[in-house]
Amino acid sequence: MHCKKIHEIIVFIEGSIKAPRFSFGSSLTALVEVVAGNRNAAQSQVKKVQAPRFEKKTRQKISDYLKQMATPEIEAQLAPLRAAVKEYGDLIRDLKAKSAPKIDIDKAVVELKARKRLLEETEISLAPKEASFDRLKLEDLLKRRFFYDQSFAIYGGVTGLYDFGPMGCSLKANMLQEWRKHFILEEGMLEVDCTSLTPEPVLKASGHVDRFADWMVKDVKNGECFRADHLIKNSIEKLMNDKKVSADVKRDGEDVLARLEGFDDKDMHEVITRFKFKSPITGNDLTEPIAFNLMFPTQIGPTGDFKAFLRPETAQGIFVNFKRLLEFNQGKLPFAAAQIGLGFRNEISPRQGLIRVREFTMCEIEHFVDPEDKSFPKFSKIADQKLVLFPHVINWMEHQRRKSPSEMLLQTKMTIYIMFQKTVANETLGYYMARCHQFLMKVGIDGRRLRFRQHLSNEMAHYAQDCWDAEILTSYGWIECVGNADRACYDLLQHYKATNVKLVAEKKLPQPVDVDIVEAQANMALLGKSFKKEAKKIQSALQQMTSEQVTSLEADLLSKKLFNLNINGEAYPLTPDLINIKKYSKKIHVQEITPSVIEPSYGIGRIMYALLEHSFRQREGDEQRTFLAFKPLVAPIKCSVLPISANDQLVAGIEAVKEELSRYELSYKVDDSSGTIGRRYARTDEIGIPFGITVDFESVKTTPYTVTIRHAETMSQIRLEVSELGRLISDLVAGRQQWTDAQAKYPKFESTTD
Amino acid sequence: MHCKKIHEIIVFIEGSIKAPRFSFGSSLTALVEVVAGNRNAAQSQVKKVQAPRFEKKTRQKISDYLKQMATPEIEAQLAPLRAAVKEYGDLIRDLKAKSAPKIDIDKAVVELKARKRLLEETEISLAPKEASFDRLKLEDLLKRRFFYDQSFAIYGGVTGLYDFGPMGCSLKANMLQEWRKHFILEEGMLEVDCTSLTPEPVLKASGHVDRFADWMVKDVKNGECFRADHLIKNSIEKLMNDKKVSADVKRDGEDVLARLEGFDDKDMHEVITRFKFKSPITGNDLTEPIAFNLMFPTQIGPTGDFKAFLRPETAQGIFVNFKRLLEFNQGKLPFAAAQIGLGFRNEISPRQGLIRVREFTMCEIEHFVDPEDKSFPKFSKIADQKLVLFPHVINWMEHQRRKSPSEMLLQTKMTIYIMFQKTVANETLGYYMARCHQFLMKVGIDGRRLRFRQHLSNEMAHYAQDCWDAEILTSYGWIECVGNADRACYDLLQHYKATNVKLVAEKKLPQPVDVDIVEAQANMALLGKSFKKEAKKIQSALQQMTSEQVTSLEADLLSKKLFNLNINGEAYPLTPDLINIKKYSKKIHVQEITPSVIEPSYGIGRIMYALLEHSFRQREGDEQRTFLAFKPLVAPIKCSVLPISANDQLVAGIEAVKEELSRYELSYKVDDSSGTIGRRYARTDEIGIPFGITVDFESVKTTPYTVTIRHAETMSQIRLEVSELGRLISDLVAGRQQWTDAQAKYPKFESTTD
Repeated sequence: MHCKKIHEIIVFIEGSIKAPRFSFGSSLTALVEVVAGNRNAAQSQVKKVQAPRFEKKTRQKISDYLKQMATPEIEAQLAPLRAAVKEYGDLIRDLKAKSAPKIDIDKAVVELKARKRLLEETEISLAPKEASFDRLKLEDLLKRRFFYDQSFAIYGGVTGLYDFGPMGCSLKANMLQEWRKHFILEEGMLEVDCTSLTPEPVLKASGHVDRFADWMVKDVKNGECFRADHLIKNSIEKLMNDKKVSADVKRDGEDVLARLEGFDDKDMHEVITRFKFKSPITGNDLTEPIAFNLMFPTQIGPTGDFKAFLRPETAQGIFVNFKRLLEFNQGKLPFAAAQIGLGFRNEISPRQGLIRVREFTMCEIEHFVDPEDKSFPKFSKIADQKLVLFPHVINWMEHQRRKSPSEMLLQTKMTIYIMFQKTVANETLGYYMARCHQFLMKVGIDGRRLRFRQHLSNEMAHYAQDCWDAEILTSYGWIECVGNADRACYDLLQHYKATNVKLVAEKKLPQPVDVDIVEAQANMALLGKSFKKEAKKIQSALQQMTSEQVTSLEADLLSKKLFNLNINGEAYPLTPDLINIKKYSKKIHVQEITPSVIEPSYGIGRIMYALLEHSFRQREGDEQRTFLAFKPLVAPIKCSVLPISANDQLVAGIEAVKEELSRYELSYKVDDSSGTIGRRYARTDEIGIPFGITVDFESVKTTPYTVTIRHAETMSQIRLEVSELGRLISDLVAGRQQWTDAQAKYPKFESTTD
Repeated sequence: MHCKKIHEIIVFIEGSIKAPRFSFGSSLTALVEVVAGNRNAAQSQVKKVQAPRFEKKTRQKISDYLKQMATPEIEAQLAPLRAAVKEYGDLIRDLKAKSAPKIDIDKAVVELKARKRLLEETEISLAPKEASFDRLKLEDLLKRRFFYDQSFAIYGGVTGLYDFGPMGCSLKANMLQEWRKHFILEEGMLEVDCTSLTPEPVLKASGHVDRFADWMVKDVKNGECFRADHLIKNSIEKLMNDKKVSADVKRDGEDVLARLEGFDDKDMHEVITRFKFKSPITGNDLTEPIAFNLMFPTQIGPTGDFKAFLRPETAQGIFVNFKRLLEFNQGKLPFAAAQIGLGFRNEISPRQGLIRVREFTMCEIEHFVDPEDKSFPKFSKIADQKLVLFPHVINWMEHQRRKSPSEMLLQTKMTIYIMFQKTVANETLGYYMARCHQFLMKVGIDGRRLRFRQHLSNEMAHYAQDCWDAEILTSYGWIECVGNADRACYDLLQHYKATNVKLVAEKKLPQPVDVDIVEAQANMALLGKSFKKEAKKIQSALQQMTSEQVTSLEADLLSKKLFNLNINGEAYPLTPDLINIKKYSKKIHVQEITPSVIEPSYGIGRIMYALLEHSFRQREGDEQRTFLAFKPLVAPIKCSVLPISANDQLVAGIEAVKEELSRYELSYKVDDSSGTIGRRYARTDEIGIPFGITVDFESVKTTPYTVTIRHAETMSQIRLEVSELGRLISDLVAGRQQWTDAQAKYPKFESTTD
């Protein structure tokens, strides 16, 4: 079923590829911040632009970024400039081929350079700030201030494992606390906490033992392993940047990239062979793709024969507890259970920092609902919310069009903002997507770099009815951070099949229904004579038969005077005298249903990494001075406490501040080291402390004591009494007040040093 | 070194074994709650006692409990009664042996019965409430209301693995939040979050690969495994209760029990052979004890040759991050790092519910400190705190006395309350013990059932300097829940040895010191000629030599004209021309020190289980009505919201209450099911909801709305305005106000139903 109002949650942006040349579409200005303060220039005429002097590397980065991520409006401005460059590039090649006079060629080269410069300057003026994001600078900060770092580094480190230091730990704890509040508390979910150790049969039933694998190729000589799809992707991208490779081969490569998601082992082997891809490290040949299961194996207990795995997701723990949870909810549907915990995946050769790790914290929700009614009571509360959707229909269009790569590229970018009606499968799924968007905004993800991408049918499991990934744009590209899937009743049915324990809910029928029952009852006296100890087993098998099975048994007994009962592969021949067929009518008031499951699944490490990229800033005019602009809600430390000098007079003021902050359970860091106040601010800005409290000589001159608060993001300051500090900062952290409110209420303080 | 003031933190209770018969020592009354409201009788004369009619099973349980856990004062009253019973038991046996006249025997039996009844009644009147604790009743409640339950039950379950349901999850989360606040925030610790997956070399260095094992015996026929020490303990306990077993054998068994902690495999094998212990399940013979490593093995990555384990403790993650943490702390000692996370231990055959599990949450602190100065700046803040200490000297006394079991038993019980001076090794360790006590009290552990037991020297690792376990008394006996250990510098040194990465801090010397340096410098030109590519390796080995090693090298070169340099087992003959010995003096301002580590380590599951036992109550006069009296701070749900009837008039009142509670982020559960208010109270009491908010017709008669709050533990009620609800309950939860404060402020409400 489709939900009634879901179209209302989709954003409409009337971007057009035919926007007037060299001018912004008005709807876009709100969406795009431009680099290096050149917004005005960009809004009028590009010719006036004085592009700041970026290094060639940075200019290239901005250009690459725009090729992948530009909005349709920006693309509309760049396309003709790119065409103009191409025109002169082609012209010069022609001239050279024709051995034209040098003067003609030189003239053309001068024009080409001018056109290239115009393109570059336009790119720089239009690019959003993050286009020039420098990942190395961020990584340096994160390592230096111990947000997180590679695990077991003194032992040489392990790829895909990271330890969180005090800053990362606190950031993560704050994100998890907000998640718990936003989902578990506000939605009244049932939280569970299940074990990571999981017996093999559970993961056999869930499909993980057989199918949770990646294709891997090995270096034939040294045995080094590579994930096959990543190897193909990286090798093709290398081809693309190789000037010596022909346009035909590049088109072929692009075609492979577009279809790679759906490739099986044979397809990948064919590509590796055809392109002659080798180990990127040794240049040696590679084996055929081999399936590698991504679960970490272990055994429970001392005998060694109880096989188990570390869970690859937390969801199964919820499914196997379904009966207890349903009972906890007094047998009523719908209800949601949630779990925050570790997941483990033995990635083949993880790269990309926190994006692809072997041990990670995830938050999962399993919302159990009547498959015939997936409406959501609180849907109206989010019906007006705007989301950026990227439905599969657009994906499909892309694939259709992929014969003309440049056209496809344009399409991809535009479609990010395209809107569809009746796209999301049902209200419950839509509700969780909207709540997902709210959560990501609350913790500080940049809304311009967030989209919901619908899975293609070949990406989804066969049982899934719909799936939307919340993808966040980082310097690694669009990264899947949250999955929102309607998994139908697959999981509960699988565990029922494996255990024979019914995982169902009772649904009251609108009115009682008469049902014809057909049962096969064993004649135990005779059965015991014929089958001795086996009689009980046969009786139980007969009891478990459905009405249809009994009807077919009855037919056999009538026609052949014999029914071969099959129990675990063994046949028991039953004659009519052994069985009584009983038929009667029964009034049924309730119906047993296997609930559908809507599953939002959050990768906390990935969201955290995206958040770090989106919060990373460089002070304008002093690019070396980097800092993290966290929302106060998630900031690892809420306040710095800075005495203006080491003078003893200030001690009483510092103590008063510490006491006031402790009373409100606000974390703080005292920095009484030497160094100018400006340098100390820079140090606290680096770790994203949103509020700097300074105790100066003015503070302790009179009672009650006063202090200044500096807002790190804007560097503006106010002065207030110490006794007002706790409540104001609590309010700012919880979002009950904004900094501008505080500025309106308290006198401004002008610092001489920052 | 011993700390100066540590004796102040030790409790003095002047209990005496010579206390007047049949009366309480006055200091004890405050400590002991008596069963079933018979305190007055117990305080005057036992002869007046009307013991409530307990079942025989319960009477036996109380008697057993007192044999193990009575205070010296209670013991002093029971000992003569027990002697009186024994006297007549012996007399009757004698009479029977002598074939005395029946009438004499019958008279003696009447007197024996009377003496037995007096003993039993006295026991019942003196026993603390928890002596009649019924574990089955608690377990039934915990299962039924899904606090926790066996994992993967629909797959048959796995011993030693438990899943937490909504109630257990929330209780655990509240305990962890308080732990984080109590330790990490208040003490300014550096929190880290490291991986569970740990490479083998790390755990090889820490000693876990070689020594983290239990002795196991196997059933020779079916291979079933048993932990050897548990098997011996259980088998001996069975012997003890067997009337047919001789007193000599029992004494022998008791002797084994007393020494069991220190047994190695040979000792255990000897005992199993001597007592002819068999498999308790099949009666088959058992193998010799085999060491079984308790870590779960796995491999990282696809090649299968990167061996790893699931961490058995979180501590190692902190040690391998020592350098980063020291740097984060600007190179200064002391500092503490903390970690909250999972630990995994592959127990051989876990029983005892949450007490012994295979996957558990632990909280560990590693406090790094100058080994020569373990004073603690904030020690004075806890110097007056009272703790119950059980130092190893007492253990030792016990062992000395174990020749006379009854005397020893008396000693054991009395010594729980004995106090010693200069017992705890240093201020830092003492500080953490006091903070540990505070934490356990805050979450709701019963202080009468908490003691700190010092490890015996044969229990401690050879490197440990002191260790005190916080033990909590449960129906399983005294359970180790927190370890507080001074581990000296063992861990950092081990990782240094394994990695050659120095894990040291710099300590400023009081004044600079001149140090004589002797270095061996390679003559690279000649060395290169002789050793080619090996020259660099030799140069580096020479550079790493200590002054002592160089001096001995110099001596060899002088005497033998040759020095055999050993690198990884290979010898390199060096002649005098290849080496220049350089000697000089250097001024040293700092000294490198390897910090000592004080390690408090908390088992959250065990504390939680003890907390559940200590919080379990039965309503007086209605033993079937059980409930959990949690402290509001840790209660999984803070409020129930109960409309007095399903009438629509009350809806607005209910909504107002929900809104008010949400504003203060207070968790609540609405129970609008049918059933009397009394029955609904009972249901919310069961899951330990401390406050019940009832909306009645009075509530909505006038504005502002009013409601009643019922305090579950005392069942008393007050009435107040809805707008006052949030702040009052927040204050009650945080402990800023007590219920008696609220009772004083707001009018009492008399309920007709409860």
